[in-house]
Parts: sequence; C-alpha cells; structure tokens
Amino acid sequence: MTASFITPEWVQDAVFYQIFPDRFAASPILEKPNNLEAWDAPPTPHGFKGGDLLGVAEKLDYLQDLGVNAIYFTPVFQSASNHRYHTHDYFRVDPLLGGDAALRRLLKEAHRRGIKIVLDGVFNHASRGFFQFNHILECGAQSPYLDWFRVKGFPLNAYQGKPNYDCWWGLAALPEFNHQNPQVRRFIFDVARYWLEQGIDGWRLDVPFCVDDDRFWQEFRQVVKQTNPDAYITGEIPWDAERWLQGDQFDGVMNYLLTYACWGFFGGEKMDKELVGHWYEHGPQYFTPQADRFAENVRALLKKYPRPAVQSQLNLLDSHDTARFLSIAGGDKRLQRLAALFLFTYPGAPCIYYGDEIGLEGGKDPDCRRAFPWDENRWDNDLRDFYRTLAGLRHQHAVLRHGSFEVLYAAGQVLVYLRQQEGEAAVIVINRSAAASFELDLPVTDVLPEGMAFRNAIGQGGAAVGEGRLRGLTLPPLSAAVLLPGNG
Amino acid sequence: MTASFITPEWVQDAVFYQIFPDRFAASPILEKPNNLEAWDAPPTPHGFKGGDLLGVAEKLDYLQDLGVNAIYFTPVFQSASNHRYHTHDYFRVDPLLGGDAALRRLLKEAHRRGIKIVLDGVFNHASRGFFQFNHILECGAQSPYLDWFRVKGFPLNAYQGKPNYDCWWGLAALPEFNHQNPQVRRFIFDVARYWLEQGIDGWRLDVPFCVDDDRFWQEFRQVVKQTNPDAYITGEIPWDAERWLQGDQFDGVMNYLLTYACWGFFGGEKMDKELVGHWYEHGPQYFTPQADRFAENVRALLKKYPRPAVQSQLNLLDSHDTARFLSIAGGDKRLQRLAALFLFTYPGAPCIYYGDEIGLEGGKDPDCRRAFPWDENRWDNDLRDFYRTLAGLRHQHAVLRHGSFEVLYAAGQVLVYLRQQEGEAAVIVINRSAAASFELDLPVTDVLPEGMAFRNAIGQGGAAVGEGRLRGLTLPPLSAAVLLPGNG
Repeated sequence: MTASFITPEWVQDAVFYQIFPDRFAASPILEKPNNLEAWDAPPTPHGFKGGDLLGVAEKLDYLQDLGVNAIYFTPVFQSASNHRYHTHDYFRVDPLLGGDAALRRLLKEAHRRGIKIVLDGVFNHASRGFFQFNHILECGAQSPYLDWFRVKGFPLNAYQGKPNYDCWWGLAALPEFNHQNPQVRRFIFDVARYWLEQGIDGWRLDVPFCVDDDRFWQEFRQVVKQTNPDAYITGEIPWDAERWLQGDQFDGVMNYLLTYACWGFFGGEKMDKELVGHWYEHGPQYFTPQADRFAENVRALLKKYPRPAVQSQLNLLDSHDTARFLSIAGGDKRLQRLAALFLFTYPGAPCIYYGDEIGLEGGKDPDCRRAFPWDENRWDNDLRDFYRTLAGLRHQHAVLRHGSFEVLYAAGQVLVYLRQQEGEAAVIVINRSAAASFELDLPVTDVLPEGMAFRNAIGQGGAAVGEGRLRGLTLPPLSAAVLLPGNG
Repeated sequence: MTASFITPEWVQDAVFYQIFPDRFAASPILEKPNNLEAWDAPPTPHGFKGGDLLGVAEKLDYLQDLGVNAIYFTPVFQSASNHRYHTHDYFRVDPLLGGDAALRRLLKEAHRRGIKIVLDGVFNHASRGFFQFNHILECGAQSPYLDWFRVKGFPLNAYQGKPNYDCWWGLAALPEFNHQNPQVRRFIFDVARYWLEQGIDGWRLDVPFCVDDDRFWQEFRQVVKQTNPDAYITGEIPWDAERWLQGDQFDGVMNYLLTYACWGFFGGEKMDKELVGHWYEHGPQYFTPQADRFAENVRALLKKYPRPAVQSQLNLLDSHDTARFLSIAGGDKRLQRLAALFLFTYPGAPCIYYGDEIGLEGGKDPDCRRAFPWDENRWDNDLRDFYRTLAGLRHQHAVLRHGSFEVLYAAGQVLVYLRQQEGEAAVIVINRSAAASFELDLPVTDVLPEGMAFRNAIGQGGAAVGEGRLRGLTLPPLSAAVLLPGNG
C-alpha cells in the first residue's frame, strides 16, 4: 500500500444513487427528436426513452428526500447507444440528455443540495463514430490517427466481416484505444481533467482491468487528484481488486464481490441462477446461503483491501449490468429489505440502483433498464420509506459509516454484527430464515457493557445486556433489527 | 429583386485569398499526430499534410503584404477527410487545425489587421461519422434521429453495397440532410448563428443548389443577417445564379461563369481542355478565345444579377475544385498575369487561390491542393510583386472597385475597357495576342475629355486623349496596361 493512501471523506459518508440517464426522468422543457420509444414500453437493446439530465435536476428533491447525497451516472457523453458506452464525443454531453448546459444546471442544483456527481469514464474503448476511429475508417492507412487504435489490416471490417482491429470482447462497435500511444494517454487524461474542471466529483471507470497497465492508472490518479484532491475514483472490477486498491490507482471499486455474497445469502433458496447468469463465474465462493460462510466472506472483504479503500467501496445490490436484486430474489421484497439493510449498515458507501427503492423489477439487460415510473400509484411506498429510514440512520449515526465491524453470531441463516467506534455502538440482527424465528441471546461480555440498553431503530422492541448477554428481542422470519443505544 | 437588397460594403472592397487549410501553413507550436504525409510530397486523395489555423495566423503578415483583406477558407470543422467537406462535427474546429482555440486566435489576429474571415458551410450533406447519421448507423430504425436523413432501408449500406439513403452524387460517405425536418433546419441555422457569434464574417455555401428549397435559404439569410447584418453569404453556383441572387438568399456567388470566360479567353489556344474537364459542360458558351465574345460575356454577367450582387461576387480564376489557372494555361505565366489583371480590374471581389501568386502549378484535384512551399527560393517573386501591385491598385483606386464597366474595344484578342465614377477613370488595355502588338488608338469623344493624360500604372509609358482619340501606347504581345489619370 502507498504510504499516504487518502480517499475522499465525502465518499465514506455517501449514499449513492445510480442513474441510467435515458431512463430516470425526462424534462418537459427539452425538445426531443421524434423517434422515441414510449416511456413505459419494455426497454429494447437499441431504443431510446428520452430521459435527460434536466429531468434529473428536476427530481433532486425526490432524491434528497430519499437520503441520497451522491449520484453515479452511467455515461452521459455523446453516444450512439442508449447506454452511451459507445462514446462518440468525450467532450460533449449527449444532446439527447440536454447537452453541456443540462449538466451544468444539474451540477449547480446538485451541489447546492450537497449532492455529489460521479460520471462514468469509458476509457478502454471508443466507438466506430468516435472521431479518431472514424478518421481511420474514412481515410484508411493515410489517417494521421492510425496509431490511436491497433489496426491489423485494411479495409477496416468495422461494419461487416470479422473486425481486424483490437476491440472489446471482439465487438466491432467498440474499438479499443492504443494506450501505449502517448497522444492517446494525454487525450484521456485531458478528458478526465476537463470534466473535473467543469465540476464533477469523480470518475467511475468502465472495465479498467482491460487496460492492463498499472502505470496508466497511476498517471490517471495523479491527473485526477492534482485537479481535485477530493475527487473519487472507483473502478468497475467484478472480482478481486487488490491490484488497483494499493493507494496509487483507485479509491474504491464497484464491490461486486459483496454483491455476489448478498445475492447468495439474501437470495438464498429463492436466488434465480438464470438471472444471476455469468456473474456467478466471477466468484462462486461468494454465493452461499449460509450465514457463517457469508459472514466469513464479508469480513474477508474488509481485510482484503487497505482501510481507506474499504471505506470508499461502492457497495451495490445490482446495477445496469445485472438483473435487479428484487428479480434475482424471486420478487420477494422482504429479501430486498434485508439485503438493503445489510448494505446500509456495512462499511463502504451503499448505492441504490434507480427504482430499486420503489420496487422496480427487471431481469437481465435490457429489462433491468426500465424507465422510472413517475406515476406514484405504481410505487411501493413502504419500501421507499424503508430505504429513506436506512439512509437516515446511516447519515445520523457515524458508527454505521465509520465503526468497526464485528460478527457476533453467524449460524444457519442468522447474522448478528456489531458496529462500534468511540463509545458509539450499533448491533444489527438479521434473520434471513423464511421459517424460524430468532431469539436474540448472545454473550457480549467482551464487547458491550453490562446493563447497556438498545432500541430497535427500524421496528418494535429492543434489547439489553444482562448477565453478559445481549437479549430481549425475538425476530420473526425474514426480519431484522438495528439496535442503537436507548430504551426501546 | 427584393426591394432592399443590401450586400456588405466590405465585400465590395475586398481582395480575397482562398485557403485550403491542410495545405497552407503548419504552425511549429501545434503538436500533430504521427502519420502525416511529407509537406512537399505530391498530394494524395486521403493523406494529410498537417496545415493548421495557427499556421495561417502566423502568415498574416505575408497575406497583408500581398494586399489581402479577406480570407475564404474551405471547411475547417472536424472532419475525417483532408478537404473537410465530410463534416463530423459542425460545432468544433478540427483538432488537426488547432481546434477552436486556433480559430479564436486567427480571428483576433486577422481582425486586428482588418482582414475578414469567411468559412465554408457544408449544409447539404454531413458524413458517416456525423453524430446523428452515425446514430442511425449504430441504432438502426430505433434511432431517434431517423428523420434527420432520408433512409430507404435497413441495414444501412453505408460501408458496403449500394447506399440505401439519399446521399450526394450517390456517394455513401456523404449522406444528405432531410431539410424538411424542422429540427434539421434549426440545427443548421444554429451552426450558422454560432460561428457568426464567434466572430466569423460570412459563409461560403457548398453546393447550395442541392438544397432545392428557396424557403430554406431565405430563412438562412434571415438568421445570418439578424446575427450580423454585415456578414457575407456567397454560394457555390457553377452556373447561372439568378435564382439565388434576388436579394432574399445570397449576396454573391463564386462567379464560375466568369472563371470559364477567363479560361477561354486568357487560356486561348493554350487552354488545356483535359484539365478544364467537366467544368466545360456548365457553360460552353463562356469558353471563347475571341475578345468580342469574351467582352459580351463579361458584360452580360454584370447585367444578369442585381448590382448589389454583382459588386459582391467572388471572382476567381481557379479553386480547390479546379486545376490551377497556370496549369490550365499551359504553364504560361504571362497568361496568368493578364487574367489576374482582368480579375482585379473587374467589378466584384477578386479571390486569389493560395499559391497562385507565387506560381504554384497544379492539375486536377488532388494535385491542385499542393502544400504551399515556404522556401522562398521556390517562389516566383516577380509574379508575387505583380499580384501585390494589382491588389494595391484596387485598394487605392475606388474606381476599380465601384466604377462602371464599359468596353471601349474588343476585337481579335485585344480588350480595352473603361472603369469610371464621379470624375475618376481608369482604362485597362489587354493584349492577349501571342504574336501581334497592339497600338492603342480608340475614339473616346463621348467618354473622356480632350487632353486627358494617363500613365500606365503597371509599366512604362502612358496615353492621352487627342482629337477625340485615346492613343500613345503600344502594347507588345501578351501584355497589358492599367491607365490611370496622370502623366506617364
């Protein structure tokens, strides 16, 4: 680990909300081109709904009410794809999203509310329409930009045949940059610097493991931190991320290993393996319905990385790349509640995938990218209240953000853990069993003082320490308690 | 004609210089990508030399010394072609040219010297990499921009097969805008307005006749003139342009009909018909070596259009789209001198195609787009002095810009004409004959006062009115005189 590994404080205190910009909200102010899909129609691979960034700005009250203080956007730059991972222009916000002006407005409105904005940096590959690649496509071997990509032959098989240039996953639509070209590196660093200068608060990096060059990401970090020392860098690493979390590259990663553990434990017997799909391969050992193994896994994750990185992880139950947790868990909202509760009471920044909080379901891509239904009759307001409560607890109780994490009990499908710091304490009790109640009665002599009383912050009752044991609470199946000091 | 047809005064006083930006000058300050052609190597259809706009800014002293006070640039916006007619981004100056910053710098430096800047507006078609077209290419029938172009089927045959969308001359690389879409119109008008707001002084319009919609160009004129009433609009119309010069569309056109006349008369027996090529078809009647027919043609051109348009014509001997005049005239610089002299003493703004003034030769595209040789040993400095003299005369003598045009004599290969206004007068005598001298002796009773003396502003001797006749000068073959009041 680098001697001075410092990650942004605000990330450690953040509740993130992930937005897929085409699908969250469409401002009535912005005129759109004509050929859009109906907002509520099922998503298609290539169709557009017409969400935009002004729409997001108009919904900041909703997000603030939910307890969100940071937004991670999937890509917003000009792109000929609805997910915008096929970047056409890195220096322009997509016109469909309202262009640069909409981002400026959003940044201003968000920052006024103390909400941070993190953008998606897609720096491994560009698109066929990206200027320097299109240049080669149009001018052939005589393009000055020939060494911006790794071209193996002419004519380029960009729209027919087998691609004869390096591209991501062999997809012709996604030509990979030649990061060994210093001009390409500078271009990417210029992009990173430019948008930070425009006011964004950090970068989420798309498939950074594909750029197999530590020096590249080290330079990237230097550029970012020199521009804004408080900017967040988080990488999409769907497996062990030690390589990138030594202090010289990223601050955190999208903590997919934790995601797998949550799918396995909270999904349990209801977990839909078909919806989990290829993600299973990235960490089969994390998929376990057993509390003891789950506890072991999530504890190990806290030791795997330096503490500054652990505190800056982006912890998620799902994303635009996975089926939604609720669908993976067979549509059982009780399981979603337990998983969310765990996420909000575990070290690292929880991230809500837009719509999860109102009970939006969704299978694999593109179904997981449905448009947010703004008709409140379609919302599960109890679920939304629960998320609001979780976010509120996390904001109010620093122990839930910064405290130590100690497992007090993990057996069968029950998990009990203690968060503690400087006289603050919280005990989280989760009964994942669908059948059995759990009566809390655990030895705590070494960790909690005799006589200490707790109230359940998310429900009835409470518990207290007597005769060296924490007891007094019985949890029905599929329920949980957050015990905070006080009388229940 | 529109009641109030006003064209910019500055155009009527302008000496234009046409620059093909990739080939005029490359600033040593700008870093370029690696794969450029050698500056002095013969031009190729797809290769780049790396000229840029900072380079132009650095050469403004050269242009000012030559007498240039307006520059018309072939396209400068981001484009994956060396001529940049395949626009990739209308709101960005090409990065190879130094980007927006280089244009800003150029505008500042040029305006400080009183030099106007006219850009090329390519609004009939875009390119395959242009965002909204690339969007359809990538997203197919589900692209919201479907109605920005006229697509006849999917998948798009953009890079193989026969194009199944409207494109210029059937070229897949040049998809034509659907100008009936109000959003497309607004986009183009926004482009026009934006760059005028950035400080450019006018638009040269590429193939505007392809947009067969008077209302479109009427709206275009309104947008331009509302933004800057003094902005110039000139169209590329290679034939009769009456339709566009009634006061409601353009101020002038690239006066190709005059070009043909100059090729025919000054080229004469030396005119290389192969190099003239397809241009011949646009106006066979203009190609004549006979002075009387030439005189008739150039007089007719002054009557064909309203006077404000005549005064605002862009008069040219050649361009990036033709072989150079010198090459068409078999490399005979004496013929070039005569033609240039005519151009500078005829109503309408003369335009020098970069490099003509130093004797640069060039056949058909791409040979007519050679890089400007900055090694002065390769310059014909006598020729350059001659151009400087012509520009100087035009600037010093308003009569050459605004005076009437009256043919005093046109026979064989000799042409004599009078320019006159408010007591000012100039007589231009051109002996195009390669064999015979011409002794000036013409009746001028009705037009010039007895006893009036003239000096030859571009050579020895002079002439005077005696006994109602202008006489006293003998011109050897292939020579000319500009007679201005005074003693020779």
